[in-house]
Amino acid sequence: MSKKIIIVGGVAGGATAAARLRRIDETSHITVFEKGEHISFANCGLPYYIGGTIEDRDKLLVQTVEGMSKKFNLDIRNLTEVTAINRADQTVTVKKAETGEEYTESYDELVLSPGARPIVPPIDGLNEAQNIFTLRNIPDTDKIKGWVDEEHPKKAVVIGGGFIGLEMAENLHERGIDVTIVEMADQVMAPLDYEMASIVHEHVSSKATLILEDGVKAFRENGKKVVLASGKELESDLTILSIGVRPENELAVNAGLPVGQRGGIIVDDTLRTEDPHIYAIGDAIEVKDFNQRNPTMVPLAWPANRQGRIVADNIYGKNVKYKGTLGTAIAKVFDLTVAATGNNEKTLRDLNVPYEAVHVHPASHAGYYPGGFPVSLKLTFNPEDGRIYGVQGVGINGVDKRIDVIATAIKGGLTVYDLPELELAYAPPYSSAKDPVNMLGYVASNIADGALEIVHHHEIDRIVADGGTLVDVRNPEEVAMGAIPGSINIPLDTLRDRLSELPSDRKIYITCQVGLRGYLATRILEQNGFQPVNLSGGYKTYSCVNA
Amino acid sequence: MSKKIIIVGGVAGGATAAARLRRIDETSHITVFEKGEHISFANCGLPYYIGGTIEDRDKLLVQTVEGMSKKFNLDIRNLTEVTAINRADQTVTVKKAETGEEYTESYDELVLSPGARPIVPPIDGLNEAQNIFTLRNIPDTDKIKGWVDEEHPKKAVVIGGGFIGLEMAENLHERGIDVTIVEMADQVMAPLDYEMASIVHEHVSSKATLILEDGVKAFRENGKKVVLASGKELESDLTILSIGVRPENELAVNAGLPVGQRGGIIVDDTLRTEDPHIYAIGDAIEVKDFNQRNPTMVPLAWPANRQGRIVADNIYGKNVKYKGTLGTAIAKVFDLTVAATGNNEKTLRDLNVPYEAVHVHPASHAGYYPGGFPVSLKLTFNPEDGRIYGVQGVGINGVDKRIDVIATAIKGGLTVYDLPELELAYAPPYSSAKDPVNMLGYVASNIADGALEIVHHHEIDRIVADGGTLVDVRNPEEVAMGAIPGSINIPLDTLRDRLSELPSDRKIYITCQVGLRGYLATRILEQNGFQPVNLSGGYKTYSCVNA
Ligand SMILES: Cc1cc2nc3c(=O)[nH]c(=O)nc-3n(C[C@H](O)[C@H](O)[C@H](O)COP(=O)(O)OP(=O)(O)OC[C@H]3O[C@@H](n4cnc5c(N)ncnc54)[C@H](O)[C@@H]3O)c2cc1C
Ligand SMILES: Cc1cc2nc3c(=O)[nH]c(=O)nc-3n(C[C@H](O)[C@H](O)[C@H](O)COP(=O)(O)OP(=O)(O)OC[C@H]3O[C@@H](n4cnc5c(N)ncnc54)[C@H](O)[C@@H]3O)c2cc1C
Ligand SMILES: CC(C)(COP(=O)(O)OP(=O)(O)OC[C@H]1O[C@@H](n2cnc3c(N)ncnc32)[C@H](O)[C@@H]1OP(=O)(O)O)[C@@H](O)C(=O)NCCC(=O)NCCS
Ligand SMILES: CC(C)(COP(=O)(O)OP(=O)(O)OC[C@H]1O[C@@H](n2cnc3c(N)ncnc32)[C@H](O)[C@@H]1OP(=O)(O)O)[C@@H](O)C(=O)NCCC(=O)NCCS
Repeated sequence: MSKKIIIVGGVAGGATAAARLRRIDETSHITVFEKGEHISFANCGLPYYIGGTIEDRDKLLVQTVEGMSKKFNLDIRNLTEVTAINRADQTVTVKKAETGEEYTESYDELVLSPGARPIVPPIDGLNEAQNIFTLRNIPDTDKIKGWVDEEHPKKAVVIGGGFIGLEMAENLHERGIDVTIVEMADQVMAPLDYEMASIVHEHVSSKATLILEDGVKAFRENGKKVVLASGKELESDLTILSIGVRPENELAVNAGLPVGQRGGIIVDDTLRTEDPHIYAIGDAIEVKDFNQRNPTMVPLAWPANRQGRIVADNIYGKNVKYKGTLGTAIAKVFDLTVAATGNNEKTLRDLNVPYEAVHVHPASHAGYYPGGFPVSLKLTFNPEDGRIYGVQGVGINGVDKRIDVIATAIKGGLTVYDLPELELAYAPPYSSAKDPVNMLGYVASNIADGALEIVHHHEIDRIVADGGTLVDVRNPEEVAMGAIPGSINIPLDTLRDRLSELPSDRKIYITCQVGLRGYLATRILEQNGFQPVNLSGGYKTYSCVNA
Repeated sequence: MSKKIIIVGGVAGGATAAARLRRIDETSHITVFEKGEHISFANCGLPYYIGGTIEDRDKLLVQTVEGMSKKFNLDIRNLTEVTAINRADQTVTVKKAETGEEYTESYDELVLSPGARPIVPPIDGLNEAQNIFTLRNIPDTDKIKGWVDEEHPKKAVVIGGGFIGLEMAENLHERGIDVTIVEMADQVMAPLDYEMASIVHEHVSSKATLILEDGVKAFRENGKKVVLASGKELESDLTILSIGVRPENELAVNAGLPVGQRGGIIVDDTLRTEDPHIYAIGDAIEVKDFNQRNPTMVPLAWPANRQGRIVADNIYGKNVKYKGTLGTAIAKVFDLTVAATGNNEKTLRDLNVPYEAVHVHPASHAGYYPGGFPVSLKLTFNPEDGRIYGVQGVGINGVDKRIDVIATAIKGGLTVYDLPELELAYAPPYSSAKDPVNMLGYVASNIADGALEIVHHHEIDRIVADGGTLVDVRNPEEVAMGAIPGSINIPLDTLRDRLSELPSDRKIYITCQVGLRGYLATRILEQNGFQPVNLSGGYKTYSCVNA
């Protein structure tokens, strides 16, 4: 059964594949080529080492070349780049970084896990600048940290509001640097929909300067000046370019292996490319969306690790399928946790999938126990059969738990009707007797059942402008703190006595703080012959966007 | 569709049922009888108000009689006890606490949610004591807090090591009181198995005095002296009796409704008793174990709330089934979180269900990011088909999340083979690229597949005593900190070179720190013709028990 296996790339996917290959078979010859100095390092920890949260650089090195070679009996060749795949004779050409020496090595099976690299567009003035960095590996990290330690930058510009950009913004802010984030889209954190991202915008703006819907046109004065498309100019002592990554697909492309529209290497569900002896995994590949089965790219560590294990199994004939990627993602963004799994509304709209969405803002744990904060959750689902498509969460604490529970529910094929059935752990420091996930389930299943009709934050202003009746059922003290323009206030407790004030011949729109009392109002109204429609997420969701 | 509905008990189950009944139908007449002063209070918060974590007593009152009556148009009669159910004429007899006045009230449908009360055995000297309390409701809380505030007790004895006992121990300790916990069993927290409870024992012992396998024989000197079965005597200025609860079943029993072996009112899966117009929910009823379908009792808030909603639906003909209780439970025990869901090993053994169990101790989040601690998890499952039976978790943080994920997996019918597939949210502050739940799945599925044979902490000493070979594959520095007696040390990195030292004609037992390196060793050994068996959870699980 002994095979000669070559792995390209020695970090998340590659190292995991190597370890699992060895566990399956002691006799194979397993060679790992890594063009960098380090294998198996903690990519995800890099921003925190720059920020000082991780103090010890050695902690970033999960495995060393020597340690891992010994433990798993591997032939690890770092500082050695694979420069070509010669499919006809099943060899790779490699080049040693230090000497430039080239040679070929043969394989029975080849695994590509070369990752993805930061996108660097040809911006005017980029090449002359000294203070512009991207972040992918340990040398990049050393450079950025060295610059911060030695040059003591006062102002930094982070270009791109994805998770790496925001993590860098947080960590530079930790170092006492004044940070400006520039993002081309109208929102940060693409896995979120706009109103959820708006919560993040508000928080980020209290820690850094956030510029949305603007891009970089040029760098001037060796990078000290960043000129934006709008004409705005920013001073910068340090600029991080983090506008996304693109798959390292050159080896595959040059070997004639097909790649997808966005450049991801195409593999089947056993992670095999078109060539029966070449597999590819990790950031470099195109995957199927778990729910919708459309091709997508999810350059994250869980998929890379999972695929590393599966590819090893398949090389040894176990025939394990990779079932697709949900895209579960999370980031600490200053004091917030921001997370998502599955499909957001933007994606569902683009794919033309029928969906509904609900918003809730319950407390992370029992309201009477200190330390709880609202968890804003948005669930997307199929209103016909209740199938869950995805969830987004933003809050101070307890967000990761709810996202993980729903990621599990999706993988288990549960519907919104099953969410109220989830018997989750409750004591006051952890949750409520009805967990926020149960609550999402109750609300969504009421909608799927037709027991509740809802309207969304982005629709309500137009409805009111068109003469619709919007009733705010909060107490006057709450309304005084801010309300939707044009709403009339009838507190819930008085609603039954004031029904005569309302029209019964057309829809009545209801709002409250988070949606719960609005729902109670809809129950009263509906049974009294009215046609109530509740605002999803209440004033809280509305005001995220209309702050 | 209008009905006259009576609910007995106005807290978790009762109040939830009332609210949902009203949401379904505006026209019903809904009467809630509550013998105490308060409805809808936060039972679960009571210990924290005594300890001072919750400062404001009003926060314990989730809804007031007035507020809830108005919001839901309810006829709430507090300080009114239901003393009899007259099934023949569909009435209840009630008695007003303040005046002693009695009257009857008729019902179309009756819902019993009377809860459970603390068990108070007839211990010698109990009646003469002034300083012995049980905790169930607000008046109990006021009494205990008053005693602490005014009598300034120095020493307290908590009898019973269940979650209420441990929460009280923590909260009295918070108040500067020297606490002794007395527990009759050999462990605290019955939902855990012994070795998992042992982790709790060690922690609790650093904060309080823990006496196991001993019970109270008598109280002397008006409760100032607590005499144990062992003869030991404890001083006490304040004693909490928290040895468990028993269902409030008298009303049901006197009305001839069947109860189970432990006194829980028997209901069908629509929560209806034998009488078609009488339903029962909450702590007072017997439920089915979700996995094994045996009768059990789970006096917790989630089931009471869930059943409150379901019973209302069923009264209105929606025919919703209660699917059984997993028994998901959690408690903060000083700095630890202790949680469980599903069936533990003790239960599975008692029920004669074939099972296997695995132990892992991964970090709560990426090891290189500060603030992580080990999460000790034990998973029970069916080794034939991989069905998940339950999980227990103990740790400083991140425990609730993993328990909730597995509770979701169980409700979704997932097997151990599905756990590695769970795409959980990973960034360094939250998890690892392979979450602890994924890890449980990998380990358990290796066992279910026959790729890994394991032995348990409680078996290994005897195996060594009988001449078995036990190899510790940790490094010598680790072994020096403590090892299993009789083990020989062959560090993993040297194993391939030292195979000749090992016997190939019989099983070789392997241990390491947590089980991972031991597993790597088994892979090497098995492929070299040996018969390796790994110690589940490694030295860490072993030393929990053999400290
Ligand atoms: C700053 C940062 C923070 C991140 N944070 C998170 C996070 O919080 N959560 C999360 O899930 N993911 C995070 N990620 C993403 C995660 O690290 C990647 O998804 C994962 O590492 C992908 O694994 P991979 O094996 O595909 O690629 P990599 O881990 O990038 O490994 C690819 C390796 O292949 C080498 N290589 C490439 N081409 C060749 C060649 N021709 N010859 C030899 N070697 C080659 C490269 O040098 C590289 O070391 C983060 C990434 C970065 C950069
Ligand atoms: C100190 C403490 C801490 C707890 N912590 C947790 C926790 O962290 N997590 C968790 O899940 N659960 C916890 N619980 C348990 C949880 O509170 C119960 O499971 C839940 O309240 C049960 O709901 P129920 O409606 O069955 O009974 P209850 O909420 O107890 O309500 C029953 C009510 O019925 C009234 N009643 C009884 N008989 C009559 C009668 N004949 N006439 C009129 N009224 C009557 C009683 O006075 C009582 O108010 C805790 C309980 C206590 C006491
Ligand atoms: C370090 C690295 C090489 C580890 O790979 P790995 O060996 O596959 O993973 P782990 O060390 O987690 O071990 C998992 C294996 O141990 C087993 N295992 C884990 N805990 C165990 C226990 N307590 N008892 C028995 N077996 C256990 C699992 O079953 C699994 O084995 P299997 O795949 O044969 O079933 C790889 O993950 C890596 O390079 N990581 C750093 C890079 C990276 O991921 N970066 C992105 C995130 S920052
Ligand atoms: C307070 C109490 C009466 C509330 O009961 P409840 O009304 O059933 O529960 P909630 O207030 O959580 O509201 C849930 C309802 O609001 C709906 N809802 C919640 N959030 C919503 C939102 N944002 N938008 C629309 N609807 C929402 C749910 O769908 C559900 O309605 P449904 O059952 O008709 O589907 C009851 O839980 C109670 O007495 N609790 C205290 C006692 C207790 O539980 N003790 C033990 C734990 S300490």
